[in-house]
Amino acid sequence: MNFGILLFDGVEELDFVGPWEMLTMWSKVAGGPEHCLTVSEASTSVTCAKGLSVHAHFTFDNCPSLDYLLVPGGQGTRREVTNQALLDFVMRQAGHCRAILSVCTGSFILHAAGLLEGRKATTHWASLDRLRELGDVDVVEARYVRDGVIWSAAGVSAGMDLMLAFIAYTAGEAAAGQVQCQSEYYPSDMRYGLFHEDEQAPEYLRDPKWKTTSSS
Amino acid sequence: MNFGILLFDGVEELDFVGPWEMLTMWSKVAGGPEHCLTVSEASTSVTCAKGLSVHAHFTFDNCPSLDYLLVPGGQGTRREVTNQALLDFVMRQAGHCRAILSVCTGSFILHAAGLLEGRKATTHWASLDRLRELGDVDVVEARYVRDGVIWSAAGVSAGMDLMLAFIAYTAGEAAAGQVQCQSEYYPSDMRYGLFHEDEQAPEYLRDPKWKTTSSS
Repeated sequence: MNFGILLFDGVEELDFVGPWEMLTMWSKVAGGPEHCLTVSEASTSVTCAKGLSVHAHFTFDNCPSLDYLLVPGGQGTRREVTNQALLDFVMRQAGHCRAILSVCTGSFILHAAGLLEGRKATTHWASLDRLRELGDVDVVEARYVRDGVIWSAAGVSAGMDLMLAFIAYTAGEAAAGQVQCQSEYYPSDMRYGLFHEDEQAPEYLRDPKWKTTSSS
Repeated sequence: MNFGILLFDGVEELDFVGPWEMLTMWSKVAGGPEHCLTVSEASTSVTCAKGLSVHAHFTFDNCPSLDYLLVPGGQGTRREVTNQALLDFVMRQAGHCRAILSVCTGSFILHAAGLLEGRKATTHWASLDRLRELGDVDVVEARYVRDGVIWSAAGVSAGMDLMLAFIAYTAGEAAAGQVQCQSEYYPSDMRYGLFHEDEQAPEYLRDPKWKTTSSS
């Protein structure tokens, strides 16, 4: 099993490292995919949105056939939605992937690759209206959402919740529990400030007992 | 203001990228440190514990004087606690830093650099006994703990809670709220499996209303 994470200049750091941590922990302690890898268009370093410099394991040309692909977000997505080489790569891999996942504004890349038409999907709270304006996406304000083989998460940190849910769905709650335990992902529920009461806050956040939604 | 994050081979990915995201978001949206940087011993790529390849911005030789230093954990700490060049770097920077922070087993590096004697500190749940065995640390089972200028977090993902608390302490709750909002850090409270009921679970996790502790 090959699980790939797409990188590009301007990718938001936590968008991909959060899921990467959960994914690779799954492989280490609970029988997750044998090969977890990052892939970018060229073999140069990727400069992330906040300045971290990372080197992808593969390029579009030498990347193995993927079983799962995760597309993170970040400011760079605004450029990459018109990068035909990147969209071709996503479409080619999607042809045989068992699931495609996005985090934050990574959903705009899935849309540009033709994968979100008529689908439920979500994105960073500040980009929800922009996703709605595309016209053909059923936008939900959830922490994450699954619609068939397409999974999408809300902004930045939501990728970790997405990946744990994906592991639970794919390999069972015990496997997700092992990953959660080893990564000590029992986050504080502390809310600084009052954004959760703001009218711009996504629906799941305004509901103190937020639920995720999914449809098959 | 310079805020540095220490990197080394075998550093756990989320240990440093979680805080990095919160830190750089603070700089971007709420007046955080002007310079956020990563630093490693040599100018080669750092291979993280789960295989991600990153390139630090500075080496020990050309790193600017830091106001804040964060030391992440990971398997690599077991080697680095005897790396005198790294310990010298930490001690040298600690001499003028306003605060030193650790995540996960990064606390063992702080200890090896002589910074934890008689201090309250914490680490990954699976390393709590090992930290106690050092004999001179007041080990607490909290999500994070502050003891004067020394802050430490529990395992891996706890670095994000630590950094938000650090921002709130340093710059006020409104600043922390802006960072939390932009990184959409409103995590799910979903617990997969039953580790929270296990006797090995850290105290904060067994208490459903866990509190952090701090002493001045």
